[in-house]
Order: sequence, then C-alpha cells, then structure tokens
Amino acid sequence: MERTLIGELGSKVGEAVLIKGWVSVRRDQGKMVFFDFRDRSGSVQGVVLPSSAAIETAKEIRSEYVVAVEGKVNARPEKNRNAKVQNGDIELEVTALTILAKAEPLPFDMSASGYNLDLTAELDHRALTLRHPRLQAIFKVQATIIDSFREYMKSQDFFEFQAPAITPASAEGGAEVFEVEYFDKKAYLTQSPQLYKQIVMTAFERVFSVNKVFRAEPSSTTRHITEFVSLDAEMGFIDSWRDVRDMSENVVRHILQELKDHRSKELEFLGATLPTMLDTTPTLSLTEAQEKIFAKTGRNVVGEKDLSSQDEQDICDILKEETGSDFVYVYGYPTRQKPFYVYPNPTHPEFNEGVDLLCRGREWLSGGRRINDYAQLMQHVEQWGMDPAKIEMFLEAFRYGAPPEGGFAFGAERMTMQILELKNIREATLFPRDMNRIDGLLSSPETKKE
Amino acid sequence: MERTLIGELGSKVGEAVLIKGWVSVRRDQGKMVFFDFRDRSGSVQGVVLPSSAAIETAKEIRSEYVVAVEGKVNARPEKNRNAKVQNGDIELEVTALTILAKAEPLPFDMSASGYNLDLTAELDHRALTLRHPRLQAIFKVQATIIDSFREYMKSQDFFEFQAPAITPASAEGGAEVFEVEYFDKKAYLTQSPQLYKQIVMTAFERVFSVNKVFRAEPSSTTRHITEFVSLDAEMGFIDSWRDVRDMSENVVRHILQELKDHRSKELEFLGATLPTMLDTTPTLSLTEAQEKIFAKTGRNVVGEKDLSSQDEQDICDILKEETGSDFVYVYGYPTRQKPFYVYPNPTHPEFNEGVDLLCRGREWLSGGRRINDYAQLMQHVEQWGMDPAKIEMFLEAFRYGAPPEGGFAFGAERMTMQILELKNIREATLFPRDMNRIDGLLSSPETKKE
Repeated sequence: MERTLIGELGSKVGEAVLIKGWVSVRRDQGKMVFFDFRDRSGSVQGVVLPSSAAIETAKEIRSEYVVAVEGKVNARPEKNRNAKVQNGDIELEVTALTILAKAEPLPFDMSASGYNLDLTAELDHRALTLRHPRLQAIFKVQATIIDSFREYMKSQDFFEFQAPAITPASAEGGAEVFEVEYFDKKAYLTQSPQLYKQIVMTAFERVFSVNKVFRAEPSSTTRHITEFVSLDAEMGFIDSWRDVRDMSENVVRHILQELKDHRSKELEFLGATLPTMLDTTPTLSLTEAQEKIFAKTGRNVVGEKDLSSQDEQDICDILKEETGSDFVYVYGYPTRQKPFYVYPNPTHPEFNEGVDLLCRGREWLSGGRRINDYAQLMQHVEQWGMDPAKIEMFLEAFRYGAPPEGGFAFGAERMTMQILELKNIREATLFPRDMNRIDGLLSSPETKKE
Repeated sequence: MERTLIGELGSKVGEAVLIKGWVSVRRDQGKMVFFDFRDRSGSVQGVVLPSSAAIETAKEIRSEYVVAVEGKVNARPEKNRNAKVQNGDIELEVTALTILAKAEPLPFDMSASGYNLDLTAELDHRALTLRHPRLQAIFKVQATIIDSFREYMKSQDFFEFQAPAITPASAEGGAEVFEVEYFDKKAYLTQSPQLYKQIVMTAFERVFSVNKVFRAEPSSTTRHITEFVSLDAEMGFIDSWRDVRDMSENVVRHILQELKDHRSKELEFLGATLPTMLDTTPTLSLTEAQEKIFAKTGRNVVGEKDLSSQDEQDICDILKEETGSDFVYVYGYPTRQKPFYVYPNPTHPEFNEGVDLLCRGREWLSGGRRINDYAQLMQHVEQWGMDPAKIEMFLEAFRYGAPPEGGFAFGAERMTMQILELKNIREATLFPRDMNRIDGLLSSPETKKE
C-alpha cells in the first residue's frame, strides 16, 4: 500500500490507509491502546482495539518509536470531536503495526503539554527537542522568513550571490573577529558581506545573499550569538536613500504577508501576533526622533549620537500611540559614528543617509545609501584612517564606475526572535553558538549528558 | 522620466526613453559617437549625432562610465540589423547624456572580443572582471543551479535548515580541517553538514540546506578550493537506497531543465552543451562497472576498492556509447572504505548502499542510504574507532527513533564547472579561496596590482 501523509487523512474517511511516522504519545487504557502518531504533515489519533491483530505490538511500543501503521479512517462520533486540533474529527482504527525503529525511554517529558525544559537543557538535547511542536513551529517560521526574503528579492530582479565566509585581513576590523589558522597564514571569518555585496552590485546591479556571518562576541547575553544568517541586499541606480528604505519596507511587508498566509497555525500555537505595518511606515530623522522623545517623555536626548535602547523603546511606543504603526524608520545618523562607506547627506554632511527600521522597541534592519563616487570614497578611507591596501578589491570596483547605490541587511535569527517575541535569540537558532557553547558546553564537552 | 530597462527597449520603438547603465564600448567616429550601453537586463547600441545636445559629453565619456541616457528608440534599417545580438534590430538615438559616475582608464581590455586575461590576472581583478559577459554568464548559470535545487526540494516538501559553519571537535576529522581561535578554545570549520542534516531529518523528515563547507586542501589543483557551497538533502521513510537515487536523479533533471528553459542564452554564449539524461539513468553496482570496464578496455580493475579517475572516464564513455546517456549511477562500495554512517547491504554487508552519480567522466553527486538503527550505528562507531562523546548530539537523534533514511549532496561550484566544462573550479567560484589566495595572493598582499 502507498503511504498516505497524516495531513491528508481527512479526505480518506472510510478508507484503508498506510501511514508512517513517530509515536508522540501512547495511552494504554487496559483493553484498548490509543496513540498520537505524527509525520511531517501533522498528527492523528489512532486506536488499537482489543480484537486488532496489532494489540500485542501496541503494548510494546513507546514514545518516539518509528512505525508503519495500517488502519481504517473513521469519522469520530460527534461528542468526541475536537475542532481545535488537526484531524480532531477522525480517528485511525489500527489494523496492523510495524516497528521501523525503536526508541530508548525518553530522558524527559516530550509531550506538548508536559514539556518544561529550561533553555540550557533544551539546548543540551537539541537533537531531540527539535521534535517538539514548539520548536518545529519556531523553525518553520524562520524558514518562511528566509525563503520569503529570497523570493521577494528574486521577484524584484535581484541576483543571488554567495558571499565568502573566509576573508583576508579584516577591513572593518575590531576585536570581535574570529581568526582562522589558514595553512601557515592567518585569515578571518567574515563579520558582514557588506563590501562583497557592494562589489557584486557593481557587476549585477541588484544583488542579494543569504549567508553566514560571525561575531566573536565575548559576552553571553540573550541577544548575541557568534554565528548567524545575514539576509543582505544591495541595489544600484537609486535616486536617494528613500529607494532603499522603500525596498526594505516592501520586503518586510512581504515577509509579514507570507507568514500570515502560510504560518498562521504556527504563529497561533506560539501565541505570537504579527506587528502592524501601515501603508507608509512613519519615517523620522534621528533629530526628529530625539525631539519627539524629549517632548513626550521629558528625557532630553537631543544631540546624542545614536538611539539608546530606551530611546528605541520610547520612539516605538510614541509612534504606536500616534499612528498605530509598530514600525518606524529612523535615518540620518552622525556621519563619523558609522562606517566609511555610508553616504553623507549632501547639504548636511555631518549626518549620513543611513536608515534603521525599528519595531516594538528594537532594531530590525539596517541600511542606507553608500558612497559610489571613487574620489569621495578615497577621502573617507583617509579620514577614517583605513589602509586602502586591505580593501583594494572593494576600491577597484568603485574606481571603474559604480552607480548611486544602497542596501540593507537583517539577521534571520533576530527577526525570528522579534516576530515571535522570544526572550532569547538561542530559541530562534537551530544550533546556537556562543562563547560557552558549540552544541555542547565548551567547558566540559566530555560530561555531556544523555 | 521613468527609467526603462534596456531589455525592454524592443517594445518601445518610436518612443522617447530614459535608460541608466554602464558604457561597455565607445566608438568615436569623428562626427558621430557610437556606444554600447548595458544594464542588468542587457545591451543596446546608442548613437550620438553631431547635432545632438549630448555630443560634447559623449566625447568625454569612456568605458565603464555610469550614465543616464535619454533618447529615441529607432528601428535599424534592414541592412544594419544583427539578429545575433540583443536589440540588434534597434538603436538608441541619444538626445541627452548625464554622467552618474566616472571611471578611470581600464587596466586591460574589457570588451567581449578583446578580453584575454589569464586566470590569475582575472582573479586579481575579480571586482572588475565580474562585469565581463563571460563571467556574468557563468554566475547566472550558477545562481540558477542553486535556486532550482532549492525550488525542487521545496516542491517535494523538504524543510530548509541552516547548517552551522563552526563545529566542535571534528567527528569525521582528518587533516583537512580549518581550526578557529574560539575565544580561549579551539573550534573547527565544518567540512560537511552531514551529521546535522541527519539530526534535522529526525525532526523534520525531509530536509535540505544550502551552506558553506570548508576543506583545508593543502594542494593547488584545478579542482580544489577551500570554501564552497554544498547543496544537501536528506529524507526519512525510504524503502531503500533507490529512493535516494531517484530523488537525486529528479533534482538533477530539474536543474538541467531549468537551465535549458532560463539560461540557454548564457549556455550558448559559453559554448556549453547540457548533458543528456535519459528517462532512466543507467545504474550499476561498483562490481558491474568494474567488469564492464574490464570487458571493454582490458584493464582489469575488478575488486578495486573504488573507481579511479580513469575508471570514471571509462565507465562514462562506455555507457554513453551503449545507451546515449551522459550520466551513470554507481552504487555498492566497500563498506569499510566509507564513513561509519553509510548503510551496509543487508545480504552482502561488505558492500554498502552508497551511490554516486557520474557524468562525462566525473563524479557529480554523492549519496546513499544511512544507518538508522541505533544499535547498528553504535556498532559502526566502535568498529570505525570513533569517540561517541564527540558525536553525542548526532547519536542522541538516533537513540530516540529514526526512520529508514538517506540523502545526497553536491557542490554548486563543481556542478557549475562540470556543466559548463570549465577547466578550473576557480572560474566557477565568485571569490575563490585556496591555499595561496583569499581574494589577493596570500604571499604578497601588499603588492596587489591595480
């Protein structure tokens, strides 16, 4: 018999079927045995009657056994229906049970209701906890975020490129870079595909990438991991930074729409509410944002070089109240506070044309216009005290004709965390790496628990 | 005026348009000036007549200048039409020219016909040479390979996951692994997402990933780079290794079809011919392949532990002649020659159920069935002399119920190289890394040429 996916059983009432999957729960009621079976498409309840040929095997089977199940799809009597769960109106009457793989007794309760691991234990057992519906839901949401970013960029004629992970002497440098033993030389793990995406833009005009980036964060906060997925885009022939802002708004809007259309079940299960994006997201200069905060809260932050965490929270709260928007763009940061490639405002060159998207008190996305004129770029290289030899490949791209351009980037894990309002970015990372953990705890890999 | 993409000019004959792009070539014919303009959608010829207001600017413009061009789209007279090039039946009569960015004089001839850099020089100037139509075509083909892999796996209900790059103590180990200074500890760059994809399979059943992998190849051959894109898939609930073989055949067939449908222009430009895939690709055991080679060539390789390069070439030639197929699957390798997780044939356990896809004398893709039974897996771990503590996370996934399963993988750069029959994998890598190069030559980064 051909395998039927559990998600398709609803249309097979009265038919004999074969399903394959895992046993989530077994409830032995003496004479009868009930099961929750699951596969990649969902869950269904099965019942093994005392008269079934499968009753002996049913008594032997435990949670997480992998089984092939033959049975008949029955409609449940009205009083036993449960509209709140998948396949709540049917039941599989099991006629044959084959064990495809056994499982050892679980080290903790994996049931939807009984699962209560703390995050450390959850990560210690990532290979097993990934089967839990909560974790499944989180990573399905994340896959949709990444895929809908890609699909949107493709629809806008962006070329996908693969940004390198290993880099030579770091341009943007700093302490937070991982060093690689590269034969008898030193190399580094990339902190951002920024310079590469600008290079590739000068050849393909509109480009995007989905690639790993690395930060040697020597701290263990709820918001930092050392390896994450960066979603990057860069576009040429813009008229101003507003084209970049608009493109980033459109891609975020598309992601939210895709989540609404395809992940509402998961969002509901996780108790997450998508943020509200208006037709036009409020957009303020840094100074305007600071003045608004001052006017509303009395905290005078006007003239500060950046928004603090408190400022981010306040400006989001204020705009939410004023307009209903959960999002706000803030642009125009002090030029010297930001990297050398960010475009200074032509009439007020002390402010740049960088722009951040905030939502619910946090930064979601960063971008802006970049300098495309070679002479201006070289001036900044000098003013920023950089060694042009270390970025020669980047400079070459701009030496030979680069259009007015800009782009943006955001982290897949961070956006997942923020959309789902998770407390710790590790919850939104399949295999999180931090200064204390690479799968196992680094301090004592040999004492890994079972 | 709104910008029109060059690729859309054919439908605008008689209209006034604005295009934006680069100058590929300028031909100054004294009174008139001819240009080839290009943007992301293609090329068009422009002409500036002596009477045009743009004639002064036209004289100033050089190759790779970035320009905004206003003009009128004219049909070319019959005798001047060129059906072989894009927009060969039209010409843009330029009425206004604005320079958006200047370019320094090119360090070498970048024209389609005059370009003749050797590979080293091409890589030294990757930021510029990426603009050449040959390189554009190669990386467009590669983007299509990667994207059509992903689209096919999605259509087959595979879940996309992000495999980690930084790993703890390497399981499959060996010398060819890069070490990372991970705070005060050591970590390694992943050589393959193999164990991770098997873990994630036990939670999501069907999974795929597009991720970077790293090999510290201490040799500088035409086929080795240190960082490449691995396309990986893994599926549970297979009946045998043949399900894996079939899935991999389907994905390769889909990739070839997508290339045919969407990249025929690039393939033609590169002089590449897609290989022939029959409805069913010939599939031989290693022993059968060896016997065929012996019978046909007289070279007795029967009983050898693997196919040599010569064997791979011979078996492909033989099957091509016998069946017309450019592809051949070879399965059933000596169990002890392969990693611990490969499934041994139940009736002939000295041979495994691994399978390779060869084409035109080269391996394209590798895969097979894996061991899913925990006891059997632990037996192999012991026989292979491995430390179970180092792969505890992997073992945990299989300790608690894993279905019969298998998967496959291939490298995006290698497949690009092989489809296009390029001589060196660096040609098929956007920013190739090898033991001597990370963008610049490692021996003398300070002497980088302009």
